[in-house]
Amino acid sequence: MRMGQRIGVIGGGQLARMMIPAATNLGFDISVLAEMEHSSAHLAASVVGDYRDLAVVREFAKTVDVITFDHEHVPAEILDQLREDGVVLRPGPHALAFAQDKISMRRRLADLGVPTPGWTAAQTLEDVTEFLSEYGGRAVAKTARGGYDGKGVRMITSANEVLDWLEALAPGEQVLLEEWVSFRRELAQQIARRPSGQMALWPVVETVQQDGVCIEVIAPAPLSAGRVADMAAHIAETIAEGLDVTGVLAVELFETTDERILVNELAMRPHNSGHWTIDASTTSQFEQHLRAVLDLPLGATDMTAEIAVMVNVLGGPVAGMTSRLARAMERHANAKIHVYGKEFRAGRKVGHVTVAGDDVNAVVAQARGAASNFQD
Amino acid sequence: MRMGQRIGVIGGGQLARMMIPAATNLGFDISVLAEMEHSSAHLAASVVGDYRDLAVVREFAKTVDVITFDHEHVPAEILDQLREDGVVLRPGPHALAFAQDKISMRRRLADLGVPTPGWTAAQTLEDVTEFLSEYGGRAVAKTARGGYDGKGVRMITSANEVLDWLEALAPGEQVLLEEWVSFRRELAQQIARRPSGQMALWPVVETVQQDGVCIEVIAPAPLSAGRVADMAAHIAETIAEGLDVTGVLAVELFETTDERILVNELAMRPHNSGHWTIDASTTSQFEQHLRAVLDLPLGATDMTAEIAVMVNVLGGPVAGMTSRLARAMERHANAKIHVYGKEFRAGRKVGHVTVAGDDVNAVVAQARGAASNFQD
Repeated sequence: MRMGQRIGVIGGGQLARMMIPAATNLGFDISVLAEMEHSSAHLAASVVGDYRDLAVVREFAKTVDVITFDHEHVPAEILDQLREDGVVLRPGPHALAFAQDKISMRRRLADLGVPTPGWTAAQTLEDVTEFLSEYGGRAVAKTARGGYDGKGVRMITSANEVLDWLEALAPGEQVLLEEWVSFRRELAQQIARRPSGQMALWPVVETVQQDGVCIEVIAPAPLSAGRVADMAAHIAETIAEGLDVTGVLAVELFETTDERILVNELAMRPHNSGHWTIDASTTSQFEQHLRAVLDLPLGATDMTAEIAVMVNVLGGPVAGMTSRLARAMERHANAKIHVYGKEFRAGRKVGHVTVAGDDVNAVVAQARGAASNFQD
Repeated sequence: MRMGQRIGVIGGGQLARMMIPAATNLGFDISVLAEMEHSSAHLAASVVGDYRDLAVVREFAKTVDVITFDHEHVPAEILDQLREDGVVLRPGPHALAFAQDKISMRRRLADLGVPTPGWTAAQTLEDVTEFLSEYGGRAVAKTARGGYDGKGVRMITSANEVLDWLEALAPGEQVLLEEWVSFRRELAQQIARRPSGQMALWPVVETVQQDGVCIEVIAPAPLSAGRVADMAAHIAETIAEGLDVTGVLAVELFETTDERILVNELAMRPHNSGHWTIDASTTSQFEQHLRAVLDLPLGATDMTAEIAVMVNVLGGPVAGMTSRLARAMERHANAKIHVYGKEFRAGRKVGHVTVAGDDVNAVVAQARGAASNFQD
């Protein structure tokens, strides 16, 4: 017997996994189309198959009321076909297209007047050289599609450093070049938006990256109240409306040394920078995402503590996991420990820890301490 | 690939359902032996079968590392056989025996010196009449086994009112008679205990019953700090140790008009009186139960708000569930709404709402208001 809405998630990673508690609490059925048998979200996996196979995705779509996503990699042709079939996709293909292509996204942000680092779309070595000379001899080069966690990103000072990318370009493709911004720190603003227009924002957070991978998030971002928070919120609202995003949108931002707030990247789904909300906000990003994709009223986004710090657990050997978990629990009774059920590999995000409290120094120390138990 | 411990739960009700988020967060695999196809915990149901069938339970036990329970109804013979097979059961059969038989439980509590209402085990009309005359002409009669939510409980003033129960007694069975206590209010003390002995307590809460069914819980119980909280904690610790309980134990208490704290009933599992912990304690009763049954260090039991109030959602028609959910969300953005995925029936617990905050009057009003949206 079916009591409520059936939510389908394409992709079986940890984001789909973390939607399971939210769906379970609210009484929704959740099904996952997972790419492999032992995915992170295997508990809810009703189909194991290839999300690039139209027949597979179509069959999955018949079993649910709405489809949302663990990642942005479902091909546009498949999304368009599903939409023609009458499947409810949230976010929709028109919004996802911007998440899938960094160049078209930057064009759209420019139209919306949203501040970003200077950029161009390059096809030739000459294009790259010209951009480098315009921006002080250095730039950030990005593949337009498919990058994540630092992959598909290079800091360059000469055109030859992206020669391989240029040579591999298909007709019509380009490499994105961006101004190598001098930033004080990185921030992230998460927002949720319903199809009917309602939006809700969490406080802007500070994110810390190492080798292009997020390692720590502090909520709210220290010294952000007022101007920084207002700018971040305004940017996120402008993008969510301008791109007609439905569900959760994460806007990664630079706070520059000359006091600008610039958009770095977007993700149209729950995001690592919002994992702290599971344990320290009235409504988690996962619950809010499900409310939004079902066009239900959004929940309150107040923090339930003054400060929350999330530290990622990266890699570590699979052997001894239970004893490391026990050690972390023993030493940090107040740490909220999340393990994604993924095979451990060096540098891979396999879990995270959140600590909440009222003293930022203590909270940071406890969160780092708890996470460190998983490293050796 | 298996990353962590595999937890098996016998019974597919809402308590098993609410263990799913806790297991998912901590990276444990959870499997449920459910009694029917469309159980509340169906997402994790790996077997659908009869928990009174040894072969069914044995097969299920082979697939998990530890077994715990959604209810107390698994027959003692089956529990004993599993233990002989080497299956890890938490709580163990020796503890569960007390939860299954109210008379043997009261004998054990008397041995431990734990205060309870006066009681006797009656077999004949004469036994009942004698108890009534000793306790002012009134008593509470309970079947020794199988009662819950007010079922198997009668307030009596004459022996004839339990004649049917007495006539139906099998050899060796008795009816429990208890002093009809004049109480100010009902309380509940939840505690978790690991096999290795560590215990953790949440604040004592006030519970409100209507027709024998819990309708509301206030955490912490108003005006309980100090003497009442200390007595409740001491009673719970004495019982958890004395009965060798592992996992979560809920102790239902009377606070009498003459200032005594008496034990009413026990439940050796997560309990309705602790649902508020999901949204307003650092560690929920469901996470704590899983930590305890795996003998992992217990989590902090601090409240994340000053006050939390839980109101049960009882029955209501199945039609229009989504619109009632939307209305509750619209009017109460800060309410944590839980829906169990059970068929709606008048008076049946089908969900609950928790609101947290710092003003008990406001929080009570909001929680009742949010829950009331499901009633019409």
